[in-house]
Amino acid sequence: MADTALQILALNAFNPMASAQLSRDVAELVTRRQRSFGQASVLFYEEPLHVVAGIGTELITIDGTPYLDLYNNVPSVGHCHPRVVSAVRAQVGRLNIHSRYLFDVVHDYAEQLLATFPAPLTNVLFTCTGSESNDLALRLARLVTGGLGVVVTKTAYHGNTTAVTEVSPSSYKKGAPPAHVRTVPPPHRAYYGDDIAGGFARAVGAAITAMANDGIRFAALLVDSIFSSDGVFADPPGFLAEAAALVRAKGGLLIADEVQPGFGRTGAGHWGFARHGVVPDIVTMGKPMGNGMPIGGVVTRPDLLADFAESFGYFNTFGGNPVASAAALAVLNVIKDEDLIGNANRVGNHMMASLRDLSARHPAIGEVRGAGLYVGVDIVNRGTGRPDPAETTRLINRLRERHILIGAAGPFGATLKIRPPLCLSVGEVDRFIDALDDSAAA
Amino acid sequence: MADTALQILALNAFNPMASAQLSRDVAELVTRRQRSFGQASVLFYEEPLHVVAGIGTELITIDGTPYLDLYNNVPSVGHCHPRVVSAVRAQVGRLNIHSRYLFDVVHDYAEQLLATFPAPLTNVLFTCTGSESNDLALRLARLVTGGLGVVVTKTAYHGNTTAVTEVSPSSYKKGAPPAHVRTVPPPHRAYYGDDIAGGFARAVGAAITAMANDGIRFAALLVDSIFSSDGVFADPPGFLAEAAALVRAKGGLLIADEVQPGFGRTGAGHWGFARHGVVPDIVTMGKPMGNGMPIGGVVTRPDLLADFAESFGYFNTFGGNPVASAAALAVLNVIKDEDLIGNANRVGNHMMASLRDLSARHPAIGEVRGAGLYVGVDIVNRGTGRPDPAETTRLINRLRERHILIGAAGPFGATLKIRPPLCLSVGEVDRFIDALDDSAAA
Repeated sequence: MADTALQILALNAFNPMASAQLSRDVAELVTRRQRSFGQASVLFYEEPLHVVAGIGTELITIDGTPYLDLYNNVPSVGHCHPRVVSAVRAQVGRLNIHSRYLFDVVHDYAEQLLATFPAPLTNVLFTCTGSESNDLALRLARLVTGGLGVVVTKTAYHGNTTAVTEVSPSSYKKGAPPAHVRTVPPPHRAYYGDDIAGGFARAVGAAITAMANDGIRFAALLVDSIFSSDGVFADPPGFLAEAAALVRAKGGLLIADEVQPGFGRTGAGHWGFARHGVVPDIVTMGKPMGNGMPIGGVVTRPDLLADFAESFGYFNTFGGNPVASAAALAVLNVIKDEDLIGNANRVGNHMMASLRDLSARHPAIGEVRGAGLYVGVDIVNRGTGRPDPAETTRLINRLRERHILIGAAGPFGATLKIRPPLCLSVGEVDRFIDALDDSAAA
Repeated sequence: MADTALQILALNAFNPMASAQLSRDVAELVTRRQRSFGQASVLFYEEPLHVVAGIGTELITIDGTPYLDLYNNVPSVGHCHPRVVSAVRAQVGRLNIHSRYLFDVVHDYAEQLLATFPAPLTNVLFTCTGSESNDLALRLARLVTGGLGVVVTKTAYHGNTTAVTEVSPSSYKKGAPPAHVRTVPPPHRAYYGDDIAGGFARAVGAAITAMANDGIRFAALLVDSIFSSDGVFADPPGFLAEAAALVRAKGGLLIADEVQPGFGRTGAGHWGFARHGVVPDIVTMGKPMGNGMPIGGVVTRPDLLADFAESFGYFNTFGGNPVASAAALAVLNVIKDEDLIGNANRVGNHMMASLRDLSARHPAIGEVRGAGLYVGVDIVNRGTGRPDPAETTRLINRLRERHILIGAAGPFGATLKIRPPLCLSVGEVDRFIDALDDSAAA
């Protein structure tokens, strides 16, 4: 989960345009929204979009214009995928209850989901959101280790509960996380030189030592294996293994936040952690799990869950309910039947190669990073080569004019964040590349 | 939210029956469930139900038997209500995105929801669950007051996140909430004599003073206005007002957890707090809001939200998405068009009068308490008059044999907890009363 940098960007992007300049329809909705949502109202774009439909890779606005959606990683198998829609429509008219009665679909789903995980990750708890999943992961890790301390990356975002906000440095407009949360730079040669694996592990080790010196016992390293909100850092595959070994040696757990990289997005199996050859102790899931239906999950080892269950039960009223389970089961089947992992790999590689070509021609387009259909592109000042958030915002708004939706991440909001539905085609990539080429030149 | 006592009860109720005694179908599902869910698997009943459909007030098991559902307060307008089903089916095929683009249905819903609240409660934030709502309410209250301390009742349950578990004493199998959470007895003459309003307020005041003496600044009184998991305490209406005034005098906020009493269940307006003539600072919602579709909300004053927004944004990916909003809007319209608040009042009064008649004839049936269709019935030992959890479990399982589903609450799990869909009829109440009459006599 990596939305905060863009939240702030979006706020900035929206505020400048006076409502008089907006279409009457949009201005009216914005006014109604501000009245109901107050200061919590955050919108994308200088001129927000009034969306009325979604189909595959596209969102359709009220005037009938289709926009190519490269931003939204929730409808991961495509907006309103017919098989997910059918599954929801059938189930919602039949039964939708909590899981303390027996019903079939949640068990079919749990088994198919768990089959995508390596041993010993054989138990699942269902939640409704990635935030609930990460919160439960922290509860598990802290109870089992007896520690409180968590290490995260500097611009991480892991969700919105009290406990999860503490491990989301990017959420703080003022102040900083509490002392039991320590940050390390994201895995990039700018911070660690060529030995990213060793450098990252040493930084994690130093954070653990520093918290121990302050009397804080270490519980877990919590990372999103694509480091999305830090700016998307995927390479070299395997760099997490050394940090994972160190974490275990220090008595802590590795929590893999798969809310963003999970469900095939990285183009190499279902889970981002697999690219690193590690098996986490706890894996958390959310966003794309139900293609928009609220469902999240925590997968872990039975021994950790048994330890937890001695002190607490866990029950989530809507977690894994029949409608959410039916949607999520359809998502897994679509990923398999449409070879979306293979597509993410092929189309993602084509996108990254094309972006690197652009980078060679446009000084504002810097480093291209990613895996599968999770891609980051640094936007830099033509003169200084430093991150350029103003140019990033300009490009995002120019791409919107060309009917392409895209976001930003990173500490400066100066990395384009590209995470389209996994059914994206090569032709759609080329359309995006052409539009970015034009926009960067303009 | 008040499920923990029953979780424990259900565990106890389930464990005794060996799988050999279960039907083959149920035994197979239980085995699959234990394999996937591990120690987190909690089921109702000695012989769990395999449910395949829900219609109105009834759940249908795989053998075609209809069970009258007096337990489940999520499908509050009735299982698979056709108008909610239609709304979901239409929306899920059209658009389901997050709320940083503009779309209509969330604004229609927000306005109709806010119209049910008194001034100055004019802003809403959407979440996915009651737990997320209470967690956000705690974040708001703590940030705005600068305090950490929260007062709750002794057997309260408010949800399952890290922060919300701390304010849910009933969730602790071992240990107890941290020092910044203080508990007071529930509002009943057993603890406060005849002056429940004054006694409860004095207990809250003493808790605030005690935490201040320990250097903990007071943030909020968090109560579910039906005190459901404590055992259902509704009377006399208005008793909360004195505590609310004291809370404000001490610089704290009143958070009303309407996850259980809200949306008309108490038969007197939409919100449980209205029975007390108080206006909370923050109101939280969940369970029945979307009749099973995951949606929750926090309603508060614009000034509190503005203070919060200076330090943090709040974004919830699935919160108020088009499908959840469409379901929730249908729920509000059904409550109005079918006069479900009036029905809850009429049928609830008939139920409580009938239960009091039973109480006069059966020594095991003790005090009857409640408002509308949220009713609690103490089950007591015939000899000693003390709470009798074993008899409660026996009655719950006997009622199951008579195809009636019901739960328990309270510190001993010895209060029958009755919270059926709000469309319950007088005839269905009479069927329940006859079954309880028989069961209590047996």
